[in-house]
Amino acid sequence: MSTEPALMTLTEVARAIATKQLSSHEVTRALLHRIAQWQPHLNAFMSIEAEAALKAADAADAELAKGNVRGPLHGVPLAHKDMYYDAGHVATCGSLIRRDFVPTVTSTALQRLKDAGQVRLGTLHLAEFAYGPTGHNAHYGPVRNPWNVAHITGGSSSGSGSAVAARLTYAALGSDTGGSIRMPAHFCGVTGLKTTVGRVSRAGAMPLSQSLDTVGPLARTAEDCALLLGLMAGPDPADSTCSHEPLSDYVGATKGALKGLKIGVPVSFYVDDLDSEVARVLDETIAVLKREGADIVKVELPDQRQLSSASQLVLAAEAAAFHKRWMIERPQDYGPQVLMRLQNGLAVPAITYLEAMRWRGPALAAHNAATSGVDAVIAPASPVPAPTIEESDVGGGPSAPAMVQRLTLFTRPVNFLGLPSLTVPSGFTRSGLPVGMQLIGRSFDEATLLTIGAAFQRATDYHDRLPKLPS
Amino acid sequence: MSTEPALMTLTEVARAIATKQLSSHEVTRALLHRIAQWQPHLNAFMSIEAEAALKAADAADAELAKGNVRGPLHGVPLAHKDMYYDAGHVATCGSLIRRDFVPTVTSTALQRLKDAGQVRLGTLHLAEFAYGPTGHNAHYGPVRNPWNVAHITGGSSSGSGSAVAARLTYAALGSDTGGSIRMPAHFCGVTGLKTTVGRVSRAGAMPLSQSLDTVGPLARTAEDCALLLGLMAGPDPADSTCSHEPLSDYVGATKGALKGLKIGVPVSFYVDDLDSEVARVLDETIAVLKREGADIVKVELPDQRQLSSASQLVLAAEAAAFHKRWMIERPQDYGPQVLMRLQNGLAVPAITYLEAMRWRGPALAAHNAATSGVDAVIAPASPVPAPTIEESDVGGGPSAPAMVQRLTLFTRPVNFLGLPSLTVPSGFTRSGLPVGMQLIGRSFDEATLLTIGAAFQRATDYHDRLPKLPS
Repeated sequence: MSTEPALMTLTEVARAIATKQLSSHEVTRALLHRIAQWQPHLNAFMSIEAEAALKAADAADAELAKGNVRGPLHGVPLAHKDMYYDAGHVATCGSLIRRDFVPTVTSTALQRLKDAGQVRLGTLHLAEFAYGPTGHNAHYGPVRNPWNVAHITGGSSSGSGSAVAARLTYAALGSDTGGSIRMPAHFCGVTGLKTTVGRVSRAGAMPLSQSLDTVGPLARTAEDCALLLGLMAGPDPADSTCSHEPLSDYVGATKGALKGLKIGVPVSFYVDDLDSEVARVLDETIAVLKREGADIVKVELPDQRQLSSASQLVLAAEAAAFHKRWMIERPQDYGPQVLMRLQNGLAVPAITYLEAMRWRGPALAAHNAATSGVDAVIAPASPVPAPTIEESDVGGGPSAPAMVQRLTLFTRPVNFLGLPSLTVPSGFTRSGLPVGMQLIGRSFDEATLLTIGAAFQRATDYHDRLPKLPS
Repeated sequence: MSTEPALMTLTEVARAIATKQLSSHEVTRALLHRIAQWQPHLNAFMSIEAEAALKAADAADAELAKGNVRGPLHGVPLAHKDMYYDAGHVATCGSLIRRDFVPTVTSTALQRLKDAGQVRLGTLHLAEFAYGPTGHNAHYGPVRNPWNVAHITGGSSSGSGSAVAARLTYAALGSDTGGSIRMPAHFCGVTGLKTTVGRVSRAGAMPLSQSLDTVGPLARTAEDCALLLGLMAGPDPADSTCSHEPLSDYVGATKGALKGLKIGVPVSFYVDDLDSEVARVLDETIAVLKREGADIVKVELPDQRQLSSASQLVLAAEAAAFHKRWMIERPQDYGPQVLMRLQNGLAVPAITYLEAMRWRGPALAAHNAATSGVDAVIAPASPVPAPTIEESDVGGGPSAPAMVQRLTLFTRPVNFLGLPSLTVPSGFTRSGLPVGMQLIGRSFDEATLLTIGAAFQRATDYHDRLPKLPS
């Protein structure tokens, strides 16, 4: 455990504040100091609210002194993807169109973290309307990868990945509709949990695709993700799609044993056409899991390309329906790539959309049958490590669809099936870029993924390594 | 109460069999005799299973003699719209494509009637794939109206309306996606209950539109509809869209008082451009309800044309998605009107479909706000009484869309909103054609509609009048 406050994990700093080893003020000041150093290099924050954060930290310290503990996050400063509405605060959604939008409601997920005592530090950058896999943003510039600022962070939770990796926030809410949590986690070397559709309320979170959107955390460790999931998960009267499925003891699950768990390695698709360094990290990760007691078996999954296509189609149609009014009234205010993708969504026929939606149940049943013998499936989060900002800066040009497709090939199938998936830092390329592996689980069984992720993190230190401040 | 078995109501005949005043055999034979007389004039039955029905009736009588009572419909012969799957029996769905289709499952609604003791009499005619408002069928010929065989029955539950009106079955399942129960009830002078979306399981019923389809009975009286609803309603593991909303004592509700109930009369749309005889019956019905103690007030409903359009659009897209494979493989096996309407559904963009679906919640909220002061809304089921078979025989020609639109104008808004609606026989035109009024209720409040309908039927005899066998 680090004694430098900013370098602690969420779990550690929350305990340090609760036990008064550190004050919320000290912790907040330490983060603000680090943010001031890094932000010019990363562009990870959309807003930094230093003064308000210190004031809130002081209030938290005062409360604690009086013996009032709000909850497990008492006094912990956090920043989140700038699409979680916080009544009275601007939520840009990474867009020009919503640049001055002040919501009157607070998202349920965020409200639950506030109820647990978090201190608002500011807001984090994201792809325009959370619709982009790279971290480029036509209006606010690209977010940069702390491991090499010439490279992308992945998106759409670009600021969340960058800021957690650089230790500018202990954790951050992201959202995952086509890979938007898992890709930044992979590219930036942090832990990211895409939750089961319906596990966490989406009320007050900017919608992209009603059928695919999920809320989840990016943090340094599986244990930290478990802490946040436990605070956020469960039914919400404001979101009728939020499930009543029983919850688990997620933090408890991170103490569980890997021994006896069966992990499936796909025999195709997720192992095809991999960048050689990603392939090496996959092999090394499997070796570690095996050494630590997991049972590694081969699994033959149904056609993943079809799932990926269906996922893109549903997303395209639902995003276009949500954006239709602005596409008519303010087309010039969209970035070219987002506008192109939204316009593609206009062309989807209802019968094609309905066919894809009707296939969702049978496709999940086929996946469940194929994976019935394993507790989780391991796969790279993307076939490649982070490309450079320059090579991925294709805007709305002719190479954009292929680039988007390549980056998100391994994340979309999970969105279509609605399954949970945990991305854990699993290694580095020779040039020093992180590589993450995703653990794909059963519906509403985030707990098993957290068990595996935490066990892997007890055996490795990839999640502990620290990017260096560019000179 | 009639002493002629075929002329009894469902409630009466069920009691007569249960108390052994009549045997199931006698009752079944009486119906078969009447069916033999009427069927050549009406074409109401798709199959008449005389021998099997008498055998089942004898078995029911034998069981009863031993003191075994299956349920409230013990030994009562019934026939239903030929789209309710009954494992091992052909279900044509009114189509050539399904002419020889033998389902391996039984629809939940039908199974519950079987569990209550009903005897299978045969199957009833319907529009091809339940997609047509007239009662014409390109493959099996039109069903004829017992009140005047030159006129249509309305559709798509054409055989159900015709057979119940002619007393060839005590009641019949229909289905209502755009008015398919309420229109035949209106045109044929029987009582028809369109249930709230989710009130009765749709498992094993041929799908037309997943968002709009509802299962409900046509019968002679509101009391009979209540008896059937009570047997069929409620959750079903085989249909996840079937609701867990609490049930009511529906038969008990038919004994309730009209006094004190508030009935809203729309100030526009449902009172505009009415056929003069329909307008007169509406006024007379309101006068009866007022005289019997109901409180009649004016209501201003939100734009019903928009609801009707949204309803048609959702139906068109969902029906086309369901039929896509057959439209490609067997287009020549569809009748021209159904094929034209299905093809129109191919052109609906996903964003338009999604916009309509997203409007459903707000539209229902607006309706609820506009009707918060009343227990039900009264409206004609259609602006016109039954047209002739000849004038409505437009096939897939250029006048078909306008004809469909005119007939279904008053039924579709309720489908879009998912609300229950009870059509009751309310009068006759000077030329002797029945006219029905619909009572539109609150979500899952079928009970209040049944209270009003039964009270109206205690004060009137329209539901009791008998069409004459053509010479």
